[in-house]
Amino acid sequence: MRVIGIDPGLRNLGWGVIDVAGSRLGHVGNGVCHSAGDDLAARLLSLHTQLSEIMARFSPDTAAVEQTFVNKDGAGTLKLGQARGIAMLVPAQAGLSVGEYAPNKVKKTVVGVGHADKGQVAHMVRLQLPGVELAGPDAADALAIAICHAHHVQSAGHYEAALKRASA
Amino acid sequence: MRVIGIDPGLRNLGWGVIDVAGSRLGHVGNGVCHSAGDDLAARLLSLHTQLSEIMARFSPDTAAVEQTFVNKDGAGTLKLGQARGIAMLVPAQAGLSVGEYAPNKVKKTVVGVGHADKGQVAHMVRLQLPGVELAGPDAADALAIAICHAHHVQSAGHYEAALKRASA
Repeated sequence: MRVIGIDPGLRNLGWGVIDVAGSRLGHVGNGVCHSAGDDLAARLLSLHTQLSEIMARFSPDTAAVEQTFVNKDGAGTLKLGQARGIAMLVPAQAGLSVGEYAPNKVKKTVVGVGHADKGQVAHMVRLQLPGVELAGPDAADALAIAICHAHHVQSAGHYEAALKRASA
Repeated sequence: MRVIGIDPGLRNLGWGVIDVAGSRLGHVGNGVCHSAGDDLAARLLSLHTQLSEIMARFSPDTAAVEQTFVNKDGAGTLKLGQARGIAMLVPAQAGLSVGEYAPNKVKKTVVGVGHADKGQVAHMVRLQLPGVELAGPDAADALAIAICHAHHVQSAGHYEAALKRASA
């Protein structure tokens, strides 16, 4: 089963793809999409185009997106929401189910504690995906989301369901 | 010049299309997209599909989206942001420029005062688009956004630019 994790952001959108076979995880790819363009619409279009290309290149079977922190700044939350709309749309357009995980759920699954810092997350991602080269903190977070999704899909017995949905 | 106005919302997304020739406005169509689906990704996909169909059906030359109120509820703002991401993306995918107007700017242009209520907005939309049948308050707001955009595009001399961009 191939899983894509996405860490949404308008400026930097992290993505990470892993292969899962039983309890074994393998790194496939990771990176960061940077939005380009003069105005908001152009930047959202740029993110959509880049993420659609990644989806086509790696053909994941299932996807997960971070359930973003709602910060105190309304304008910032709105911006993040717009980028997150694109992050949710692209895998849905490819026919995938899209899981959502809160940041502390991701950290709890990957690091073991809900309040790990970015360095700890990157460290555990490297341990679980030997040889991985991380494109940056947002890409490390995206791989952590993918790992978290892989664990939950398998433990919840959704593995076959996801595969079935992917091959439908 | 054909203008589409969009009032974004996750549950109800209003849209309205008008034709503009000099100072004359004509109603083309209006309606409300309701998002369907079990989860957020499916609902965003549903909005994207419906709005893309409207774009294909009416072929507008330029688009405008309401610059949403940032409310005090962070979760609500995030939801709205996600729907707004789709509302901005669809016209951008069609190659259109996408204007953004704050609600009080729209009301000031259409009603004459920045703090008009929904009833006043619908009333002025009906006056400026004789014979229009409004699909609901969200559709009325969307037509008001389109009227506001038409005024600003013309008065700012962007009319030719928008047309040029549309025919490019």
